Amino acid sequence: MTSRRVFLGASAAVFALLAGCATHAPPTDPLPSWNDGAARQSIVAFVGKVTREGTAGYVPPAERIAVFDNDGTLWSEQPVYVQLAFALDRVKALAPQHPEWQAQEPFASLLKGDLGGALAGGEQAIAQIIMATHAGTTTEEFATIVKDWLATARHPATGRPYTGMVYQPMLELLGYLRANGFKTFIVSGGGIEFMRPWTEQVYGIPPEQVVGSSVKTKYELRAGRPVLVRLPELNFIDDQAGKPVGIQQHIGRRPILAFGNSDGDFEMLEWATTGDGPRLGVIVHHDDAAREYVYDRKSHIGRLDRGLDEAGPRGWVLVSMKDDWRAIYPPATTLHATH
Amino acid sequence: MTSRRVFLGASAAVFALLAGCATHAPPTDPLPSWNDGAARQSIVAFVGKVTREGTAGYVPPAERIAVFDNDGTLWSEQPVYVQLAFALDRVKALAPQHPEWQAQEPFASLLKGDLGGALAGGEQAIAQIIMATHAGTTTEEFATIVKDWLATARHPATGRPYTGMVYQPMLELLGYLRANGFKTFIVSGGGIEFMRPWTEQVYGIPPEQVVGSSVKTKYELRAGRPVLVRLPELNFIDDQAGKPVGIQQHIGRRPILAFGNSDGDFEMLEWATTGDGPRLGVIVHHDDAAREYVYDRKSHIGRLDRGLDEAGPRGWVLVSMKDDWRAIYPPATTLHATH
Repeated sequence: MTSRRVFLGASAAVFALLAGCATHAPPTDPLPSWNDGAARQSIVAFVGKVTREGTAGYVPPAERIAVFDNDGTLWSEQPVYVQLAFALDRVKALAPQHPEWQAQEPFASLLKGDLGGALAGGEQAIAQIIMATHAGTTTEEFATIVKDWLATARHPATGRPYTGMVYQPMLELLGYLRANGFKTFIVSGGGIEFMRPWTEQVYGIPPEQVVGSSVKTKYELRAGRPVLVRLPELNFIDDQAGKPVGIQQHIGRRPILAFGNSDGDFEMLEWATTGDGPRLGVIVHHDDAAREYVYDRKSHIGRLDRGLDEAGPRGWVLVSMKDDWRAIYPPATTLHATH
Repeated sequence: MTSRRVFLGASAAVFALLAGCATHAPPTDPLPSWNDGAARQSIVAFVGKVTREGTAGYVPPAERIAVFDNDGTLWSEQPVYVQLAFALDRVKALAPQHPEWQAQEPFASLLKGDLGGALAGGEQAIAQIIMATHAGTTTEEFATIVKDWLATARHPATGRPYTGMVYQPMLELLGYLRANGFKTFIVSGGGIEFMRPWTEQVYGIPPEQVVGSSVKTKYELRAGRPVLVRLPELNFIDDQAGKPVGIQQHIGRRPILAFGNSDGDFEMLEWATTGDGPRLGVIVHHDDAAREYVYDRKSHIGRLDRGLDEAGPRGWVLVSMKDDWRAIYPPATTLHATH
């Protein structure tokens, strides 16, 4: 190669580098699992608006806070909340250490496989199950228990690991928002320490950006080493009107974008969408009988009633899983990457 | 200019760009206010160790969590905590709306300028002052009250705005850590909502990276618009053994670097420095009579007793403000930038 050809090549390289240190590949669609309907268009238009510097709708990156419910919004919540499936398995795992449970509700019914009988005790029964299965360990032990369970537990209908029951369009959306300077948070009624061990790997959301319900913890020394012990006492319920409270406690800013799927997210959407400047509220509507589940106004899990009535008047976007989503779950071939 | 000279120039430019897309200015000291003593060397060595890829001490950026106490660590806490100065001014500002305070302790003594008399009621008196001055507003109103107060209040000894009473070496350290991939958090016994309105501008620490003490809040609609109302009820005390609890609640990871100045930070340093892998605990020692204050074992504010005894055996670094810091506060000419 002559030195002249080297220089010519170098000159072209300089030009490319000075043009922005970037290669000019054809643009790829950041949301390939979203059909080009009204929902996608509303989201893309909103992101375009808040990122356009020098315009009235511009929002600086630091204020681009996006909050997402988890159960039913980022992953499946049917036929039962994943955390309830975890708690039930955990009761079985702990039963040998608790012979008294054989004669004590709600555990006796649970251990006989009678979920209805166990839950007949209402909120108190659920609280007993949660405390028996979510307290008494250190925070580090609990994280290990959750990870170990997720590695082997399978969804009853699909046989997938639960971390394979996340919604592919939402994974794409999280990445798209972060690529546009948003900081993405989970704000869930679920247990904060049940989510943190896996949200970074699965959603790209680190533990410090997870808000959820919690039990109290206590700092103490065990054999000279400090631990945080999970106590059988509720600390915070991050649901309904608790969601704006949890958002303020953890984030300290009002989100400009909120994504939910049930009336438990109503106040979060209301809080996010009634501040100044551009705001967007979105509700995922479970209307896909063939590929997921159909439920809304009358469901015990993820009931969506008031939100369905008020989405229109409030300008919230309804996402139809059936019509707006080209795919529901990630391809099976990618699942190994989440473990 | 001949085309050959253009090509030669272009070739040099390519070389520079390929060498890392960077210009080769002489390196500037990121910590100019730190003397080159043992404290600085320990910090720089630790940062070097955890950022060196491919070595045993390497820590991925996501795990580089650094936590800082605020009062006495990032800014001055003498002659009284800034938040107490705020509360006292706020009692005076609110007194016209509370004629009953003229005859009711601790307010009556306070309004006569008798701080000792007011605080004679101990913790209950302090709680009454805090609740009277920190509750009853919305979170947004409270943020405005704090910002308005900081804009006019002045430190009694220096006449500076309180945001000018931050420690210049710590500002440099926060920037140095962030430049090395650390995420910096405040973990303070002070009120979380007293700090959030200004920590981003002053420290570069956004509201979602502030952990502190809090009152409960309640979501409600006022004239159809949602607000979060601050209630006269304690939610969380982020001090002593509460600091690891607050860290887990908000961050959900164990920090690898903790900075404090008093025994209120002891458990935070213990928690941060007893995990696996490289860990660093640092205590700022107030030993500079000429430029700041001298206090440790017997101080009512920022008492440092056990920490002073155990720093050595535990391998924690003691920073002498007198010997390790070339400057204490930012130059007066830069202060306008913080408002």
